[in-house]
Amino acid sequence: MSSVKSQISVSLDGFVAGPSQTVENPLGEGGERLHEWAIATASWREQHGKEGGRRSPDSEVVDDVVQGVGAYIMGRKMFGGGQGPWDESWAGWWGEDPPFHAPVFVLTHHEREPLPMQGGTTFTFVTGGIESALEQARAAAGDGDVMIAGGASAIQQYLAASLLDELYLHIVPVLLGAGERLLEGVGDPTLEPVEVVASPAVTHVKYRVVHA
Amino acid sequence: MSSVKSQISVSLDGFVAGPSQTVENPLGEGGERLHEWAIATASWREQHGKEGGRRSPDSEVVDDVVQGVGAYIMGRKMFGGGQGPWDESWAGWWGEDPPFHAPVFVLTHHEREPLPMQGGTTFTFVTGGIESALEQARAAAGDGDVMIAGGASAIQQYLAASLLDELYLHIVPVLLGAGERLLEGVGDPTLEPVEVVASPAVTHVKYRVVHA
Repeated sequence: MSSVKSQISVSLDGFVAGPSQTVENPLGEGGERLHEWAIATASWREQHGKEGGRRSPDSEVVDDVVQGVGAYIMGRKMFGGGQGPWDESWAGWWGEDPPFHAPVFVLTHHEREPLPMQGGTTFTFVTGGIESALEQARAAAGDGDVMIAGGASAIQQYLAASLLDELYLHIVPVLLGAGERLLEGVGDPTLEPVEVVASPAVTHVKYRVVHA
Repeated sequence: MSSVKSQISVSLDGFVAGPSQTVENPLGEGGERLHEWAIATASWREQHGKEGGRRSPDSEVVDDVVQGVGAYIMGRKMFGGGQGPWDESWAGWWGEDPPFHAPVFVLTHHEREPLPMQGGTTFTFVTGGIESALEQARAAAGDGDVMIAGGASAIQQYLAASLLDELYLHIVPVLLGAGERLLEGVGDPTLEPVEVVASPAVTHVKYRVVHA
């Protein structure tokens, strides 16, 4: 069966976003420092329709993480647009051609019609909870993997429910001091480091989640 | 000049000890899980006068971290024996021949005569604060490095004061959920990963602390 995977950048002190998050700035204060390593890569820039960037082990990681992904799941906060019933003019942060190029299932408490975008991305809004979203994402992914795109809360829910098979952490050598933690309230899963890629900017550690 | 280094095992969620620490159990609940990787190595067992253990990348790390160390500094809690004026019958956790084989400076608020042990370890009790301890340790170490042996509070103080040059973290894939954090209250030091050693049990990441 295909895998359920996640990957996220985390500060060395465990935060995936800095303090004082807002709807406009979901990364919080200093949170953009977690993503500088990725944005500097040629792969990230290609995925986002831009030129330039560096070829490096980090760039290969950015390529690697999207290989074989057939569908994505993300939390409402990652999709953005604020809380409560939908402002239907909000179509995500990514413009008309989002970098997913695959079905994306958005966890929400508020119904909304599916939103097809350019380049193969369709946002489907799921109000039936994480298991329903996973079922739909698996069906859409076919033989492909399902990527839990984030944010922290979505990853926490899948990890705590023992539905996540792989967690790839990009450990960034910055200390944010406060903010939103990733590995909190997820119980005591059995994790096995199965791959490590080191660079001067970040340490990538892929953990397999061992299911009992 | 010689370096001021530290190395410590930390859970993936950032703890160096579990919850409910006591004088008798300074590692707290579950904290011993952070050290299983080390205790399994041939190097650790040799250092502690025992036979057996595995030769592995982890064992090489355990060897590596003590190379070139000329003196140690540790906090009172790591030395043990409880708070307040000294019970002079307490000579540390390590028996008559502690595994340091070098001068060890213990940070304390309570004076006590130096305590020579077998095998080259002498515990010297420093009431003048972290800079005084470092000055004494540097003098004792000669050309050797000074190792801040722990615990968390001692490492935090040296890191926050920009007196630490290298921090080697052994990132253990367990989640303790609560306990004593390492990277808290230390400001925003500039850290550069300079060496990574991966094993199935633990990911070792050596950070250089860049001084402004």
